[in-house]
Amino acid sequence: MTREIEFLYDFGSPNAYFVHRALPAIVAGGRVAFRYVPVLLGGIFKAIGNQSPMQTYGHIAAKRDYDFLEMRRFMDRHGIDRFRMNPNFPVNTLLMMRGAVAAEQLGCAADYIETMMIAMWEDGFNMADPAVWAGVLEINKLPWQELSAAVTRDEVKAALVANTEAAVKRGVFGIPTFFLGDEMWFGKDRLRDVVEAASV
Amino acid sequence: MTREIEFLYDFGSPNAYFVHRALPAIVAGGRVAFRYVPVLLGGIFKAIGNQSPMQTYGHIAAKRDYDFLEMRRFMDRHGIDRFRMNPNFPVNTLLMMRGAVAAEQLGCAADYIETMMIAMWEDGFNMADPAVWAGVLEINKLPWQELSAAVTRDEVKAALVANTEAAVKRGVFGIPTFFLGDEMWFGKDRLRDVVEAASV
Repeated sequence: MTREIEFLYDFGSPNAYFVHRALPAIVAGGRVAFRYVPVLLGGIFKAIGNQSPMQTYGHIAAKRDYDFLEMRRFMDRHGIDRFRMNPNFPVNTLLMMRGAVAAEQLGCAADYIETMMIAMWEDGFNMADPAVWAGVLEINKLPWQELSAAVTRDEVKAALVANTEAAVKRGVFGIPTFFLGDEMWFGKDRLRDVVEAASV
Repeated sequence: MTREIEFLYDFGSPNAYFVHRALPAIVAGGRVAFRYVPVLLGGIFKAIGNQSPMQTYGHIAAKRDYDFLEMRRFMDRHGIDRFRMNPNFPVNTLLMMRGAVAAEQLGCAADYIETMMIAMWEDGFNMADPAVWAGVLEINKLPWQELSAAVTRDEVKAALVANTEAAVKRGVFGIPTFFLGDEMWFGKDRLRDVVEAASV
């Protein structure tokens, strides 16, 4: 039996990108599947008074260096070799995340997610800019006109808000977060734990 | 060949206690050994402008709850069943940590560490109080008079400062921290990683 793990993500999180890159090899085992759940990390932070680790620990060089070391270890472990820090970080992800909800409705979520992850964490684009966003979609043969229209719709906006509020209600405080049923794990370094729990 | 991992600890850290309780089963495998290195966590924090996760994230209920959940998971995984939060937390650990340096010199470090860990994280004593500290030592048949004299000695004080400064120089920002040679891992949840690295 394949068990489904929810993967709450926001394109603004490099650690969500790392997880995204690590998942194919894990899924190939056939015991677990992942359902990507788009949420707005900025909305979660605002709701609970949290902020990114880079903001919290930006002034502590040793902590920052160590976080990068752990990124490097995760990349080495999972054969991730195209990451580069986005020079526009932190990027406002509202448009991209509304697009993710719209892409689910249009049936192109997998391609959309892959495209956004590459644009953010391999190509370093400023994806908060609507023109850049639409251009990236177009180049990658995604239905950019439909997506551009969809992100302005109230029901798309509301769906992203609903995902985000539901996440806060379940105790989410950061990204990436995983759920197996009601059980929660936070952080790329606990991907292994949730996969183990799902594989029992 | 048994490889030695340095375990930098301070009795004030519940996560150091969890690691201490998890180590016997790991050491029993015979492939790794641990060298306990006493450092003053407050000194590290002061040197680099860091503070405890409970201070940083105390106002974020979801984060705090999750940290406790991960404590619970670690306890379950390692069969740790006597932990209780010290009602005096945070406890000033200067005396205890000077005592740890003194206990190394007196050849009773293993007993001293076990006694402090129990007093702090199972019995909930206020170990910053010199009378409580000495009483706990006496009850546990440790050389409390020698230890009480030793912690006032300049060379003992200086040795703890030296350990702490050396840790800061190596990039330490919290406890527990592990070193395998010059490679560093932070946090109880990475105990598994350092043991794996040492077992290759």
